[in-house]
Amino acid sequence: MPMNFPAYGALTATFTRLYHFQHLAAIASWDQAAMMPPKGNEARGQALAELDVLMHQTLTDKALPALLKAASQEALDAAQRANLREMQRDWQHASLLPERLVQARSLAGTRCEHAWRTQRKANDWLGFLENFREVVKLAREQATVLSQAKGISRYDALLDQFEPGIRSAQLDVIFADVKAWLPGLIGKVRDKQAHETLIEAKGPFAIERQRALGLEIMGILGFDFSAGRLDVSNHPFCGGVAEDVRITTRYSEDDFMRSMMGIVHETGHARYEQNLPRECAHLPLGRARSMGIHESQSLSFEMQLGRSPAFLALIAPLVKKHLGEQAAFEAANLALLYTRVKPGLIRVDAHELSYPAHVILRYEIERALIEGEIEVQDIPALWEQKMMAYLGLDTRGDYQNGCLQDIHWPWGSFGYFPSYTLGAMYAAQYFASIRQAHPDLDTRIAAGDLSVIFDWLNQHIWQPASRWETQELVQRATGEALNPQHLRRHLESRYL
Amino acid sequence: MPMNFPAYGALTATFTRLYHFQHLAAIASWDQAAMMPPKGNEARGQALAELDVLMHQTLTDKALPALLKAASQEALDAAQRANLREMQRDWQHASLLPERLVQARSLAGTRCEHAWRTQRKANDWLGFLENFREVVKLAREQATVLSQAKGISRYDALLDQFEPGIRSAQLDVIFADVKAWLPGLIGKVRDKQAHETLIEAKGPFAIERQRALGLEIMGILGFDFSAGRLDVSNHPFCGGVAEDVRITTRYSEDDFMRSMMGIVHETGHARYEQNLPRECAHLPLGRARSMGIHESQSLSFEMQLGRSPAFLALIAPLVKKHLGEQAAFEAANLALLYTRVKPGLIRVDAHELSYPAHVILRYEIERALIEGEIEVQDIPALWEQKMMAYLGLDTRGDYQNGCLQDIHWPWGSFGYFPSYTLGAMYAAQYFASIRQAHPDLDTRIAAGDLSVIFDWLNQHIWQPASRWETQELVQRATGEALNPQHLRRHLESRYL
Repeated sequence: MPMNFPAYGALTATFTRLYHFQHLAAIASWDQAAMMPPKGNEARGQALAELDVLMHQTLTDKALPALLKAASQEALDAAQRANLREMQRDWQHASLLPERLVQARSLAGTRCEHAWRTQRKANDWLGFLENFREVVKLAREQATVLSQAKGISRYDALLDQFEPGIRSAQLDVIFADVKAWLPGLIGKVRDKQAHETLIEAKGPFAIERQRALGLEIMGILGFDFSAGRLDVSNHPFCGGVAEDVRITTRYSEDDFMRSMMGIVHETGHARYEQNLPRECAHLPLGRARSMGIHESQSLSFEMQLGRSPAFLALIAPLVKKHLGEQAAFEAANLALLYTRVKPGLIRVDAHELSYPAHVILRYEIERALIEGEIEVQDIPALWEQKMMAYLGLDTRGDYQNGCLQDIHWPWGSFGYFPSYTLGAMYAAQYFASIRQAHPDLDTRIAAGDLSVIFDWLNQHIWQPASRWETQELVQRATGEALNPQHLRRHLESRYL
Repeated sequence: MPMNFPAYGALTATFTRLYHFQHLAAIASWDQAAMMPPKGNEARGQALAELDVLMHQTLTDKALPALLKAASQEALDAAQRANLREMQRDWQHASLLPERLVQARSLAGTRCEHAWRTQRKANDWLGFLENFREVVKLAREQATVLSQAKGISRYDALLDQFEPGIRSAQLDVIFADVKAWLPGLIGKVRDKQAHETLIEAKGPFAIERQRALGLEIMGILGFDFSAGRLDVSNHPFCGGVAEDVRITTRYSEDDFMRSMMGIVHETGHARYEQNLPRECAHLPLGRARSMGIHESQSLSFEMQLGRSPAFLALIAPLVKKHLGEQAAFEAANLALLYTRVKPGLIRVDAHELSYPAHVILRYEIERALIEGEIEVQDIPALWEQKMMAYLGLDTRGDYQNGCLQDIHWPWGSFGYFPSYTLGAMYAAQYFASIRQAHPDLDTRIAAGDLSVIFDWLNQHIWQPASRWETQELVQRATGEALNPQHLRRHLESRYL
């Protein structure tokens, strides 16, 4: 700790304590999802809530504002200044909202989400509205407080929590572009695929064999097993800590495809965490940049690399080795299986081609809702109209598979959805850069040489961590700002 | 929280916070032993150390002494008063030692233990002494501080940390008695067993089958799988929290006997934890009574129940079901295998018959060492002399399998060893009570009816938790004070 930067040194000590508390929260949460038997839940919830209080107290300590101000006047170097910027952001997010609002949001979100689990199954939109009105009211209050402090619009203030620096003005332009070409592209691809013949794989696929296949693929993808694990949970995720990354998947004996590609996806998240710079792991500077950038790593692995014919050719022999010989496991057929497009109602089951439509629809509705342009009762009609316009699907009256399908809104999480498609766009942009430097990329992938991909990601995304704001990170990595044309070219080149 | 007991209420709030922190420490420690990949260790160590600091700060908060004093003048009921007694004990243990001494002990113990791992393998007693002198010096300092505060002898002050209320004057009488009959009994049993023929089981025993066998036995023993798990670790233990107990074992393909009985042992610890009274789980009152009482549970399960011919008859069909048919798995042969006596040099491998001799030897040496009657260089000669006297084994010059074999002393833990044999004696005393009430106990066990055992333990040990001091607990449970004759009768009846 530099003695001539007393304020910065004191902040570093505080954030190092927070890093230790976050470690315990991350491991206890992973355990809760992957290991804990049901009767442990209440005591675990209490212990994690105690830790939340402690972390919130640490981050809203009355001494912090003066330290942040004093540190900003110390002669910090550029990296320390970036670290200070992230500390400032953390402090702001924790401090701006009055305690009362934080508690009210937590209560309303918990109540609404809990009831939603049964209301969704019962297609009960009106019952849902009773709790949801309060959730939206509090989210708007939150957005207003953040908006005033940050000097940006209410929805932008929420967006900024997940993807710092992104504004809806920019998203509007990007998404308008996507909407102009995506529906036509989906139509063309479906026409083309109507004439393809493919062979379905025949199960059952023993779970132990699926697991062995997944572990071998993780090895090919560079997962460090001395710094992480693969386990099972209901909802697959990447958790744990940077030094010890815990990914999970979910197996079905009928379907090996989903868990196999799910593992590729989570391994993308995992390698980002495993390769963040260790020397500042305990500081905000050393954290993953944003939700969008995190998603760009999983989607680089899953969409750009994992579903490519070259990668599927590389792993086809492993599929046969673990699951037995089947004609369906030939490389060309695996590529057909993993790129088959079938627009559906459910976002989490959507294909990379239709996924952006699901996100844009949600973005447009939640932005209008938070900005006060629509009210909660307007959601179903908008949902149905946009689903027809973007994906040609009739969802009238089907709330269960329509506007009640995601956990985000019941939970009170607005501004998160765009991260998914931003991630897909960043990933396409990275791979355009990598391909430009290495026109033989597919040949390398098929031969098992993935090093140019990992080296590029390591240099441009993993090592910089939170050194730059998101937009500068992408600009430095690829030489241009976020450009949705790369996603379009990727999709056209893979699917047409 | 009762409003008319403000001091007691404030203490309850503080100890509830501690209970939440202990939850996180327990789960993170279990994970460290059973799940964590090696590169996670440094960050985990830092996070756990941060939590230690936090727990120590909470327990040494300057407000506590006044609250403890004020609460003692509130009109508490008997259970609350017992709770206050345990809070007082926790506070005393945390506060009596100066911070400097706590840190010095931790450093010296860590250094000595770390070097011991290689010194033990190298039989390097002289190298070990270099670090061990400091460990003993600091342990004596600690004992002196505790001794002055508690008004008991230095060794008794250490003993009191693990088995509150026990004094060496009492142990001297008990152990003198054991020394009078144990060596003769071992000799007689060995003579008898020399004429027995038994059949060794033939491996390999697949680990998955051993695990399935262990899980089924845990079920018979009443382990609640919705409130706990069985996993693998290098050193088997019972960890986790009362609401979610994590036991571990270690498998060897050559030997199913050790892991099978190890699981029975840990299940004894686990059922104690799983059945502590839930309504005061968050308070010291609701905790397990002591190390000796905890050990009495694992030894009730392993020695009294698990190695009995009746229990082995009950589970023999399960052994065959999971590991295949072998003549060795006949009930009578399993009973011979699990009761064969072969005095050896290593305490953790010792049989129930010779185990007390290992403990008494260590007790006599560590008590003299802490009281200043001997110095560290006197240990090997004493060890060799006592090993010959109690077990007839010549260990001259073999430090590796002699006085360097245990982790306790390098680590600076003195006063713990007697808990093992106290536990064995308590367990024998409980079963004498149970047998008196149920002369048909063995018939019941063989028929799979273990309820009278579990009911007795639940009523007399599990539910009382820390309500009574250890000696009163045993007196209330069995109608008499600790009486080593029960262990003698148990051993004579099983082995002669």
